[in-house]
Order: sequence, then structure tokens, then C-alpha cells
Amino acid sequence: MAVIRVTLPSVAGRSYDVVCGTGLVDGVGRHLRSAGARRGVVVCDAALEATHGRATVESLAAADVPCSMMLVPPGEASKSVAAAARLWDAFAHDGVDRTTHVVAVGGGVVGDLTGFVAATFMRGLPFWQVPTTLVAQVDSSVGGKTGVNLEAGKNLVGAFWQPLGVFADVDTLASLPRREFVSGLAEVVKYGMILDAGFFQWLEDRADDVLARDPAAVTHVVTRSVELKARVVEADERETSGARAALNYGHTFGHAYEAVAGYGRLLHGEAVSIGMARAARLAEALGRIPEDIVTRQDRLLRRLGLPTSPTVLQPTPGPAELLEVMTRDKKTVGGVPRFVLPDRIGSVALVDGVPSHLVLRILALAE
Amino acid sequence: MAVIRVTLPSVAGRSYDVVCGTGLVDGVGRHLRSAGARRGVVVCDAALEATHGRATVESLAAADVPCSMMLVPPGEASKSVAAAARLWDAFAHDGVDRTTHVVAVGGGVVGDLTGFVAATFMRGLPFWQVPTTLVAQVDSSVGGKTGVNLEAGKNLVGAFWQPLGVFADVDTLASLPRREFVSGLAEVVKYGMILDAGFFQWLEDRADDVLARDPAAVTHVVTRSVELKARVVEADERETSGARAALNYGHTFGHAYEAVAGYGRLLHGEAVSIGMARAARLAEALGRIPEDIVTRQDRLLRRLGLPTSPTVLQPTPGPAELLEVMTRDKKTVGGVPRFVLPDRIGSVALVDGVPSHLVLRILALAE
Repeated sequence: MAVIRVTLPSVAGRSYDVVCGTGLVDGVGRHLRSAGARRGVVVCDAALEATHGRATVESLAAADVPCSMMLVPPGEASKSVAAAARLWDAFAHDGVDRTTHVVAVGGGVVGDLTGFVAATFMRGLPFWQVPTTLVAQVDSSVGGKTGVNLEAGKNLVGAFWQPLGVFADVDTLASLPRREFVSGLAEVVKYGMILDAGFFQWLEDRADDVLARDPAAVTHVVTRSVELKARVVEADERETSGARAALNYGHTFGHAYEAVAGYGRLLHGEAVSIGMARAARLAEALGRIPEDIVTRQDRLLRRLGLPTSPTVLQPTPGPAELLEVMTRDKKTVGGVPRFVLPDRIGSVALVDGVPSHLVLRILALAE
Repeated sequence: MAVIRVTLPSVAGRSYDVVCGTGLVDGVGRHLRSAGARRGVVVCDAALEATHGRATVESLAAADVPCSMMLVPPGEASKSVAAAARLWDAFAHDGVDRTTHVVAVGGGVVGDLTGFVAATFMRGLPFWQVPTTLVAQVDSSVGGKTGVNLEAGKNLVGAFWQPLGVFADVDTLASLPRREFVSGLAEVVKYGMILDAGFFQWLEDRADDVLARDPAAVTHVVTRSVELKARVVEADERETSGARAALNYGHTFGHAYEAVAGYGRLLHGEAVSIGMARAARLAEALGRIPEDIVTRQDRLLRRLGLPTSPTVLQPTPGPAELLEVMTRDKKTVGGVPRFVLPDRIGSVALVDGVPSHLVLRILALAE
């Protein structure tokens, strides 16, 4: 078991722990109790009701924290204003008050939705996360970003709302569908590329153990990823200094593929994987890195079962359409996309002013 | 013109000004420009479109801050999740981004709704207030509380979101219906009672000028009220230390009368006025204050045109029903209402454990 403390300079005295390891769900109630919870509400992915939902409720009950459970239908459609409105009403009818602790059990959709509802019900309730997917454990549950989608775009409504604690129990990953587990590994490779060459190398060495979901290997994957993300979040909690931008490596290209393919056809991690492959090619074209770094990253991604080319999509989206989506991204500066590009393995920089014709050339690559 | 700086210790380096006086709307654009705004969106009470809405838009245009205007139907029904959802969608379709400054023009409903939408669109946009009612100028626009109602209760969904600046232009009060202006004076008397005996005395001396809406008198009313509220908010931004509870003087009784009468039959300030009269009676019954303080407060409230007895409601609500509403209030402790009660003019204390039979006796008073 590893404990990573996240310290937030902007909120006086506020820090919290992300606990990574096995057998953690049983201890959730004890932690809530230590934090003074007298009552809880567990918001759970409906597909996990009988497993992790039930286990969380029992853990709270055993620690003398009575609670109710509310279910959220699985899938991205639950990350909506309508789903938030249903939870707000359910909270009100259940008598949730400012002393009630909210626990999210599920993947990124449930965590982001529940965090937003916790941030806004009675102007903010204490909030805990039990992420049950790899991508939620290594990415969305750490950093305090919560929110829902609008029809006009993803994550357009939300709040920064930090949890009191996160329990990344790798046991919950054992039953994940392989494609979903693999998709989460894209963000893991990203942390190696942007911050930690040693971790990248470790992933190359232990790819087979990771894919076999060896508990010790998966615990290391989650722990190191959370440590790296926590350092970035601490440096730039509200995305103001620019440090947090590094986390978008692979995402400028990735979001475009995701949007053009139609949300749901590519998993987020698959799109990020293709996006990282393209970003590395762009860095090479700009003379920032030699070709062998592109190749090494491609090789690791493919060994982990991730796509590195948009040819998995048929028909393959056209460069002009992709570029248009990229220039509409909310992180553009004056309509020109910004790219996070590698300098070497373990280091990236924010690059403005990349000529459109070069971006189009990368988007048109056939492999 | 008076400028009151509100300093928020919890948010590093964040402070903002509340400007009180006449002729302020014309300067709004200049302030936004100084704060770096390159684009604005004005959210305005539809009833004020042609007056203060138009003036605000022109002020921004004159300062080279292009903006759109969005209208909110007047009335409490606009303080809803549905109205927030309409604004979120409108922001998205209008291309509002993180550099867009949001300006609320209207009373408490528009300010609370717009503040909540600004707090949550893209996880937070810069926000300004142009309050156009007395109650919004002296109360709701200062303090950072934003939010909307649910069917189950008022203000159940919201966020703490501080503005970059507030322009309390007393010129906008000249056209307020008399009943609405008078209702706002209840919160003004409250500030005197809870914090400032000298201000209470000033209100007694200048009641006629205030009622005649003499600009200098009204400017003093707004300025002193904002100063007093700002000190409380600075001491307890997120309602955690207890200092902010003093602002609820008159509100425990008041909310009950408001709810039992049916929202809309009593204006908020009218309910608070009756609530303060009852709270003073309760303080007297508990031996905390002599009767002459009760009388002096009643006399000032009535001179300002405010009710001090629920007999304005026919039928007068029954004590048992009122008590039940009070015990459901979100500020109860273990189901027992807490009362903010005066010790003298200018000072209040938070009182727990008041016996129910005593509360019922006060609720049953015939005058």
C-alpha cells in the first residue's frame, strides 16, 4: 500500500491522501469516520451496485457511518446536467446536509459527476473517491477537476473540488474489460513521456506483468502515475501557471480524433495514444526530437495493446476536418492550437505557433 | 462615491472592490478593461434590458470590450437549475471562453443565478455584479454566495464564487417599486442591530430621508451596510467559523413565515422584519434584553414601512406549523433551531437549546 499526499497551496491547510494498493475498499468507512463523518451517501455506477457499491456501503456501516446508496446509469450519458439535477433532487429528498460525506464509486463519469454535485449541493459537501477503472485511478480522480458535459462540448460545466481522500484499490481493476484496462495505460505512458524517463523504462521492462495485471505491477503503475500527477496538480491547481498543460500531451490530437470519430467509437485512452504518436511525429518534424524517440514510444504503446495510428478508424478522418476541430479546442490561443511536445523521454514543452501546413502533414500520415 | 475593499484570506491575493454611489454604470466597462477583459457577456433581468442592461453594454463597448447580452425572465422562477442550464447552453453557443468576463445586471435572482453559472462554466469565469435592487446592493451581491433553488428548497445548489468587483449604483434604485425598496431596508436595520448601534441611531434620525430616497442618504445606507457585511464575510468567507451566522438574525423566524405563507406572498425583507421582531421578543423572554430594545427596533421597522407582526398574513400561520418548518431549516443542530439573538443594539449571539415551548409562545403572540 502506498500513500501519496497531495498538498494544495491555494487552500489554506488543505491536503489529502491518495491511497493505492489492494484490499482498500473495506477501509473506506474507517477513514470517513476518522474525518468526522456521521453520515454518508454513496453514489455508485449502477453496474457496480452488487460489488464495489455494496462493499463500500458495508464498510461505512461497519464504521458506524449510516449511508444511503444512489445509482448512476453506466456510460458517458450520465455525465450530464440532467444526471446532476437528478442527484441534487435525490440529495434533497434524502435529507443530505452539510455534514454528510459523499463517496463516488465508479470510473471517471461517476467521479466527475458526483464531484460536481458534491461541490455544488449546499455550496459544497465533503467528498471522497473510490475510482474503479485504471483511467480514473491514474488520472481523473486526482486533481480536483469535476464536471459534466453539455451538448455543445465535454466538461463545459464544472468546478474545482478537491476530495478529502481517494482510495485507488487495484483489486477493482481485475474485472475490467481488457480494452478498458489497456485504454487506461495510455495515460500511464503519458506520465513517463512528460515527466519520468525511469518510469517509461520500467514500463518497457514490465509490460507483460502490467498486461497480466500482476497486482504488484499494477500497484506500481497506479502509485507512480498518481505521484507524478499529484506533483503537477500541486504546482498548478487551477490550471493557471501552465504547468498543468503538460498533462495535455497527446490530447490536442487525441481530442480531435475522438470528436471526429464520434464519442464512444474510440476510448479516451485510445485517442490519447494515437495523439501521442502524432505529437511525437510533429516534434520530430520540428527537429525537437530524433526519430528513435518516436519509434520507442510507438513500440511501447503497441506492446501494451494501444493504437498508434488512426487507421483503426474506417473511414480514416480527413486532415482538414481534424484541424478544424483542433482550432475550436478551448485551449487554443487566438484560434491556433498549442501543442505539448517532447524534448526527450521524460520532458515536454508547450509549443505555440506551429504552422498549419505542418499539422496537416502530420494528420495526413498514412501509418 | 465610496469604495469598500473586500479581502479574502482564504484565496491567496484575492480582494475586490464594492463601489457605492451614483452614476457608476457608465464606468463598468472601464473597470473591466483595466482588469484585462477582452470580451464580456452581460446577463440582465429582461425587465431592465432597455435601461441598465443597455447602459452596461454601451459602457463595455465604449471601453472596447465587445459583449453580448443575455436576458433572464424577472422573478424567483429564474433562480432554477433550468435557467442555469439555459445560460450554460447560451454561453457555449456564444463561444464564451475562459477569458470572457461575465456581468450580472439585476437583483438578487439574476446575481445569484449568473454568479453560479459564472462559477461553473468551464470551471469558473471572471464575474462582476451590477446590483439594481436595494437588497442586492446591501446583501446578496456581497459575500460570494451564488446559487439556485430546487423544488425541495431555496439555495440548495450553488457555489462560493467571489466577483472581481461590484458596482452598487444607487441611481438604479430610483425606479424601484416602493414595496421592494422598503423590503430591502429590513436587511439594513439588521446590520445596525447585529453590528453597529451608531448606524441604527443614524437610521432612526434619517428615516425620512431614506424613505424619500435622498441620494446622499441612500448612498450612506448602502455604503455602511456593505462595509458591515464585508467585515463579516472577510472573517468567515465559507460560513465555517460561525461569524457569518450573525447575518441570519431575523432569518430563522423569517424563513418560516416566508415558507408557510408561500414564497412570493411576503417579500424576503418583510419576512426578515417580522423575524427580527420575533427574535427580539424571544431574547426578551430569555432575559437577554430589556423590553425597550424590542420597542425601539419595532418602532424603526414600522417607521420604515416594514411589518413587525405576521397579522399582515390572513390567515395568520399557526405556531405548530411554523415550528415544524424551523426545525427542518438547514441550519438546525440535531433538529433544534439555532437563534441569533440580540444582547443589545449592535451585538448578537448564537443561542442553542432554546426550549420549544418558549418558541411556540413567541410564535403565538397576537401582535
